Amino acid sequence: MRKIAKIIGGAAVLSALPMMAWGQDAPTLDSLAANDAFIFNTLLFLIGGFLVMWMAAGFAMLEAGLVRTKNVSMQCLKNISLYSVAGLMFWVIGYNLMYVGAADNNIFGTFAFGYEFVAEDVGTGYSSYSDWFFQMVFCATTASIVSGTVAERIKFWPFIIFVVVLTGFIYPVVGSWEWGYGWLDDRGFSDFAGSTLVHSTGGWAALMGAIILGARKGKYVDGKVNPIPGSNMPLATLGVFILWLGWFGFNGASQLAMGTISDADSISKIFVNTNMAAVAGVIIAVIYTQLRYKKIDLTMALNGALAGLVAITAEPLTPSVPVALLVGGLGSLLACLTVPLLDKLKIDDVVGAIPVHLVAGIFGTLAVAFTNNDESISFMTQLIGVLATGVFVCAASAIVWYALKVSIGIRVSEEVEYDGLDSHEVGIASYPEFVNA
Amino acid sequence: MRKIAKIIGGAAVLSALPMMAWGQDAPTLDSLAANDAFIFNTLLFLIGGFLVMWMAAGFAMLEAGLVRTKNVSMQCLKNISLYSVAGLMFWVIGYNLMYVGAADNNIFGTFAFGYEFVAEDVGTGYSSYSDWFFQMVFCATTASIVSGTVAERIKFWPFIIFVVVLTGFIYPVVGSWEWGYGWLDDRGFSDFAGSTLVHSTGGWAALMGAIILGARKGKYVDGKVNPIPGSNMPLATLGVFILWLGWFGFNGASQLAMGTISDADSISKIFVNTNMAAVAGVIIAVIYTQLRYKKIDLTMALNGALAGLVAITAEPLTPSVPVALLVGGLGSLLACLTVPLLDKLKIDDVVGAIPVHLVAGIFGTLAVAFTNNDESISFMTQLIGVLATGVFVCAASAIVWYALKVSIGIRVSEEVEYDGLDSHEVGIASYPEFVNA
Amino acid sequence: MRKIAKIIGGAAVLSALPMMAWGQDAPTLDSLAANDAFIFNTLLFLIGGFLVMWMAAGFAMLEAGLVRTKNVSMQCLKNISLYSVAGLMFWVIGYNLMYVGAADNNIFGTFAFGYEFVAEDVGTGYSSYSDWFFQMVFCATTASIVSGTVAERIKFWPFIIFVVVLTGFIYPVVGSWEWGYGWLDDRGFSDFAGSTLVHSTGGWAALMGAIILGARKGKYVDGKVNPIPGSNMPLATLGVFILWLGWFGFNGASQLAMGTISDADSISKIFVNTNMAAVAGVIIAVIYTQLRYKKIDLTMALNGALAGLVAITAEPLTPSVPVALLVGGLGSLLACLTVPLLDKLKIDDVVGAIPVHLVAGIFGTLAVAFTNNDESISFMTQLIGVLATGVFVCAASAIVWYALKVSIGIRVSEEVEYDGLDSHEVGIASYPEFVNA
Repeated sequence: MRKIAKIIGGAAVLSALPMMAWGQDAPTLDSLAANDAFIFNTLLFLIGGFLVMWMAAGFAMLEAGLVRTKNVSMQCLKNISLYSVAGLMFWVIGYNLMYVGAADNNIFGTFAFGYEFVAEDVGTGYSSYSDWFFQMVFCATTASIVSGTVAERIKFWPFIIFVVVLTGFIYPVVGSWEWGYGWLDDRGFSDFAGSTLVHSTGGWAALMGAIILGARKGKYVDGKVNPIPGSNMPLATLGVFILWLGWFGFNGASQLAMGTISDADSISKIFVNTNMAAVAGVIIAVIYTQLRYKKIDLTMALNGALAGLVAITAEPLTPSVPVALLVGGLGSLLACLTVPLLDKLKIDDVVGAIPVHLVAGIFGTLAVAFTNNDESISFMTQLIGVLATGVFVCAASAIVWYALKVSIGIRVSEEVEYDGLDSHEVGIASYPEFVNA
Repeated sequence: MRKIAKIIGGAAVLSALPMMAWGQDAPTLDSLAANDAFIFNTLLFLIGGFLVMWMAAGFAMLEAGLVRTKNVSMQCLKNISLYSVAGLMFWVIGYNLMYVGAADNNIFGTFAFGYEFVAEDVGTGYSSYSDWFFQMVFCATTASIVSGTVAERIKFWPFIIFVVVLTGFIYPVVGSWEWGYGWLDDRGFSDFAGSTLVHSTGGWAALMGAIILGARKGKYVDGKVNPIPGSNMPLATLGVFILWLGWFGFNGASQLAMGTISDADSISKIFVNTNMAAVAGVIIAVIYTQLRYKKIDLTMALNGALAGLVAITAEPLTPSVPVALLVGGLGSLLACLTVPLLDKLKIDDVVGAIPVHLVAGIFGTLAVAFTNNDESISFMTQLIGVLATGVFVCAASAIVWYALKVSIGIRVSEEVEYDGLDSHEVGIASYPEFVNA
Repeated sequence: MRKIAKIIGGAAVLSALPMMAWGQDAPTLDSLAANDAFIFNTLLFLIGGFLVMWMAAGFAMLEAGLVRTKNVSMQCLKNISLYSVAGLMFWVIGYNLMYVGAADNNIFGTFAFGYEFVAEDVGTGYSSYSDWFFQMVFCATTASIVSGTVAERIKFWPFIIFVVVLTGFIYPVVGSWEWGYGWLDDRGFSDFAGSTLVHSTGGWAALMGAIILGARKGKYVDGKVNPIPGSNMPLATLGVFILWLGWFGFNGASQLAMGTISDADSISKIFVNTNMAAVAGVIIAVIYTQLRYKKIDLTMALNGALAGLVAITAEPLTPSVPVALLVGGLGSLLACLTVPLLDKLKIDDVVGAIPVHLVAGIFGTLAVAFTNNDESISFMTQLIGVLATGVFVCAASAIVWYALKVSIGIRVSEEVEYDGLDSHEVGIASYPEFVNA
């Protein structure tokens, strides 16, 4: 039942309010300070969490816009399914593996079925539910990165099984090394909101998938690259705007506390730097494609924004605005340069997730050595973190992709690929009245 | 004029800040505690409110994606109009009827034209404006549920008149029984955020509409069910992601207070449970449709998420995660099973609102008896609440639908239905260049 | 590295919390009050800021939905680019010009390259980063207004150059007059959240652009007006819902403080009034177009919502609900009446930004004289503000548009206009499989 109406009916005065909020225990200065800090910290996780949850919609729209009509329903299905599977797996095993007891054994956390929440854990200064929610949406983001790269030819169920492993084991293990106070954290590795832990982890997994899966039929023929245009550009644009919005939660709430003036100021600075890195990413991609191709490539402008965001994610707090612009701009430029390189290697990345999340993610992580003056940070350590993540995620992903390939198979038949996955696996056309109408 | 620049120019120090925030009255411990609790509570309503307002966009996109191209403009028009009418009617009469004085007469609230806000009502612990805003968007949600079911054949103006009655009278009366401290609340009925009060109320109204209106031409012919595919699957997917996001506000802010550690912790737990119920809803619908139909039905996966969300809405706070998964999964399964049942009954529900909002809403309300161990809660009382709501809403809705049918008529002519409502009633094609281009 | 896991591992009790939040300095009553007010104020700017940032996506979707398929990719490109350029220019010069030192010279602020943020500026009661972020998104909104009007025939780069001037100089200069404590503020001009400073500034700049650019080919032929239908109505509808949502941040956070009961109450009242003005805007446009044209014009219903929102923006705090309804409804009606008027003048405004942002913006600003009883407010001063803004923005915009026209040219060739800007300037079709498939 709702409390509201009865309170309205009651005779209440200002002096009675503390009792209403505090029950029978009148606040002390210390308990009030603790109370407010707890609420601010928890609120940060909840707002940041729902903004990052919203990024799942951003990836869905971006990918639905960049695949062909015949695979759009499947791409929508994969995205809502992977977000769901990630949430389940992160509760079943991931969070325990990444955080619970991770510091103790220094390799990774606890094997246990189902994370047990601590009720009203006032000792930590925030609700454990809000923390779990915030960490879970990061796990889901990692999986979202993969789905775009391997689109238009991977079967649904093998993809889902990969997501199960990625969100239940691979991502949590990498995460435990740093955010779970494992060996990378001990060495002084720094990755504020996850350029490496989230974005390059997703990127490496996507890269392995793209290699083992092979390119789409018709993409590389007789040494020529055939561009396969996406079906819905405003949808892709919407996806990028959603991701940009969500990134304020992704980076901002990774400050992990909002109970002091200093924390509130840091979150605000992160908002500004995050925005400016994306700004530079767009501008650089627009200028680069204008000069290089004589036309402005909208998809590169969109991916430029994302590359700028990925690059600043490793350290959005210490840079000044010009440095944030530089980091975002270089991340975008590297992404622009990687796209044709992948085509030369015949690695077919449908949405450009590898340039954006892997390349800009690596760059952003290494750049921390130059943008954060803390003496504990070194380029070598950053490089070690990047390489260790790369080696582990590539090895683990390759094993899973390969095992799936030789067992149940990961690729649809040529006929299904030609017809599109929507008609064979989903049975629902994405736009039944628009095409061949 | 804006205060900002002048403050920047001033010489201010930390010690002056309390005076800036508090004016001439220095805070006391009690007044500071009251102040902060008021702001936290109000902020909860505002954030929850804008997230639920955003659900209006979610319904609009879901429905626009699931109707045929020829009716998409009309569906957009109906959705923005119903949100507007709901806001107006809830101010004109609804809020008074639902809350003001509702406890006193025990049947329903006050008949009065226009809700009078109480300025700076510090006694209640939150701004009355924020409360009204939050309650209003719930009223609008109820109307959103109806529009999808009766799409593609109902005339615009009769639909709007129904919304006037639904949001001005039917919903507020049901709401007054429980949230307005009426007879259902007195009996111990429990519906945390509205599985019954909002979702099944909308569902019953939709069901009556579907029956009295009849099925779309061509849906049921010679005993066969002809599926009528929706025109834009990514739009429907976007709608569901919007609704999922908005549901954090719907359930989370229904805690109605955020000024204590306990409340902040409860809101966080609600976020987690709400998410997990939707997660289970998606996964169950994906598995069920794979097994039952050999293909994974995207629209059922989308509706599965919504059914999970509806089911958990009656009690998102007390369940543990496994229980929340169970509630969401069963809600989704029931929705999956209801879809073919409605077709057997030749009840044409264009978007599946009846399985999702009515069936999962009833299930979720009854499940409270098992998921909330509070001794005041009984299965019988939950059942009484479900039935009373059903009887009242069905009767009231049927009377209104029927009165409209025999007076101004509710159904467009066969010609208009064949051509689509966009060309006849709106005059603007939804996608003029895509179809028959 | 993340703090979370380690805290979880530690043994912490409630009494230790203040030390965790406050470090070594135990809070005093004054410092706690200052701390909480700072966080609330900053949080308001951040939430308001991300909501207004999201409006950039709203404009992008609205405009992408209202242009023809052949220009949709370009419209998406322009929107993400203008948001980026606005952010850059507002940092490079705009904010300094608008706020820093603006009060001293009374004309406009400081010429300086790059705004220097003040770290942890506790003296102001909020983070300067959060303030800048919030002000920046307003600057971007001004530019968003222009892009819709001049769509489908303006070249990309001249448009971007105009945005550079608009966001770096024109908007900040007008803004400095009022929000930077310049001469309009001295006279008592009142524009709460920018009906004039943001919306009519964008509207005047758009009007000059439309006049100097000329109408699209085929729009006005032989004295007849040929309607050119937009390509995607649900996308336009989505855009309006996004804008409506964002407006809660636009108006609500313009209260500029949330640290007291009074401020929280004001923000809540602003939410209600903002919503109700849009509600009236929709209802009036629906009724008007039904009566006038015998069909309900969806695009006018959408623009009616926006016109209501623009109208209430100048004073969303003082009106009662009926007055807010009146202001929104009249704003919408004026917009409805302006659309055919512009066609008579052969001013081709692709999305209706001039009726919505300019006409309703002027009306809303003048209406403040009647809706705000503060004795410092007079109709004459409001009129002076409207006229001064109009004269300055028209003159400055006309100069820039004209200089661009005679130098690099602003209009694409007839061939490009016929083919669409997407194929010539962007090289990526918006919906490659839907049209002429």
